[in-house]
Amino acid sequence: MQLSPDHLRALDEQGYLFLPSRFTPEEVGILREHRERIFAMERAEVVREKGSAVPRTAFACQTYDEAYRRLARHPRLVDPVVQILGGPVYMHQFKINAKAAFEGDQWQWHQDYGTWVNDDRMPEPRAMNISVFLDDVTPFNGPLMIIPGSHRAGTLRASHDTTTTSYPLWTLDHATVRALADRGGLVAPTGPAGSMLMFHCNIVHASPANMSPWDRNIVYLSLNRTDNAIRQFTRPEYIAHRDFTPIVPLADDTLQMLAREEAVTA
Amino acid sequence: MQLSPDHLRALDEQGYLFLPSRFTPEEVGILREHRERIFAMERAEVVREKGSAVPRTAFACQTYDEAYRRLARHPRLVDPVVQILGGPVYMHQFKINAKAAFEGDQWQWHQDYGTWVNDDRMPEPRAMNISVFLDDVTPFNGPLMIIPGSHRAGTLRASHDTTTTSYPLWTLDHATVRALADRGGLVAPTGPAGSMLMFHCNIVHASPANMSPWDRNIVYLSLNRTDNAIRQFTRPEYIAHRDFTPIVPLADDTLQMLAREEAVTA
Repeated sequence: MQLSPDHLRALDEQGYLFLPSRFTPEEVGILREHRERIFAMERAEVVREKGSAVPRTAFACQTYDEAYRRLARHPRLVDPVVQILGGPVYMHQFKINAKAAFEGDQWQWHQDYGTWVNDDRMPEPRAMNISVFLDDVTPFNGPLMIIPGSHRAGTLRASHDTTTTSYPLWTLDHATVRALADRGGLVAPTGPAGSMLMFHCNIVHASPANMSPWDRNIVYLSLNRTDNAIRQFTRPEYIAHRDFTPIVPLADDTLQMLAREEAVTA
Repeated sequence: MQLSPDHLRALDEQGYLFLPSRFTPEEVGILREHRERIFAMERAEVVREKGSAVPRTAFACQTYDEAYRRLARHPRLVDPVVQILGGPVYMHQFKINAKAAFEGDQWQWHQDYGTWVNDDRMPEPRAMNISVFLDDVTPFNGPLMIIPGSHRAGTLRASHDTTTTSYPLWTLDHATVRALADRGGLVAPTGPAGSMLMFHCNIVHASPANMSPWDRNIVYLSLNRTDNAIRQFTRPEYIAHRDFTPIVPLADDTLQMLAREEAVTA
């Protein structure tokens, strides 16, 4: 899949692009089935909410689950990022953020590149996030909040927050967020399961807790140019990957095929 | 101010009614000025967020502030409630909920009447909330989330939550909230400062934390029929009032007059 000139312009100006309903219900179905199996696993990659057994994040599940192995090489996700970054990419991070009904906790205001440069010594912000909604995302179940245009502020000073939630993050101070939001406003892209959201690694974003009775699972691919590979390996390999092999996309029907194979064998 | 037949029908069916921009910028201005003074006070009525100096709630400020004394007897607020409840009313509770930028914490899922019957022995759910937005309320700064029609479920079993936030509340369990929201959905009325929101004392509602850089102050009047006065006085008087005198509304321009007097003396 290639992005149109309008898409490219919006992404350049706003720092994000929302593409509703790009994966079919059948494709979302197989991803949801496999997500259930993953979150039932007891392994280091599956992180729980602070002081709770409720799942928060499943890291690197493309390395231990077939549906997510295919999603991590899906042309609808990889091709647009290669198009924007202008060169081959590898997977820097891959995760499902669960944001469970009633229990899913917030993610504080941050830029992803803030963590990648501080913790992983990624040389330049030449990386991109692209995500797939596994559930309908509404204003009520903890949608991502984005400050449009904030990627143009460059990489902002951040502090290492190791206490607020169960996952350490380099977060921004209130004055910085206020100044950017007073200028750019806030948006929270919402839409049906199967929608895609792309955003620049310097976009300022956060997400509130999920108080609703509905889960809000989103898969995030963080793709980085192979010539921009990280230089420092302080985080676990399942959080900051060290395999810099360029991704070769699979066929567009790879998830459909898996869904049908599993339907036959079930 | 009297409600129209359409308003009455909506309130009866949905359990809430949103009336945008019913107070003018001048009226909101005087309320905002006085709110600042109130939250600067150190007194028992002004409750802070858990483990923080950030203001959460100013109770009973109609008893120690002139602008809020007038608001508590404002005909745009009192008349519609008298109309709905069909008899004279007194003030059961009066408060500003601050929901401060970045820091304002959540209110868990609850019915107000759950607390009023359990803590205060209010005989019947013949009371009503009516509120005024002192700031623009957006999807981002912690709007009230309401389950439309949930007031028809009656008074639901609740548990006393004394740990989640700084204010004890009788809250509902997840299964109850899920069943109601799967049927009725969720709404979060948003609109400019000066808007009014009325809701039944048995409506199921909650509000998320405010992660945005913008405050979200709302004044809440809880009006109760004088013949439905509370029977038990376990909570402080500034939280559950014991003066059951019927409210006689002031003139419609009472806040406008105060704004002009203070402008002259300033």
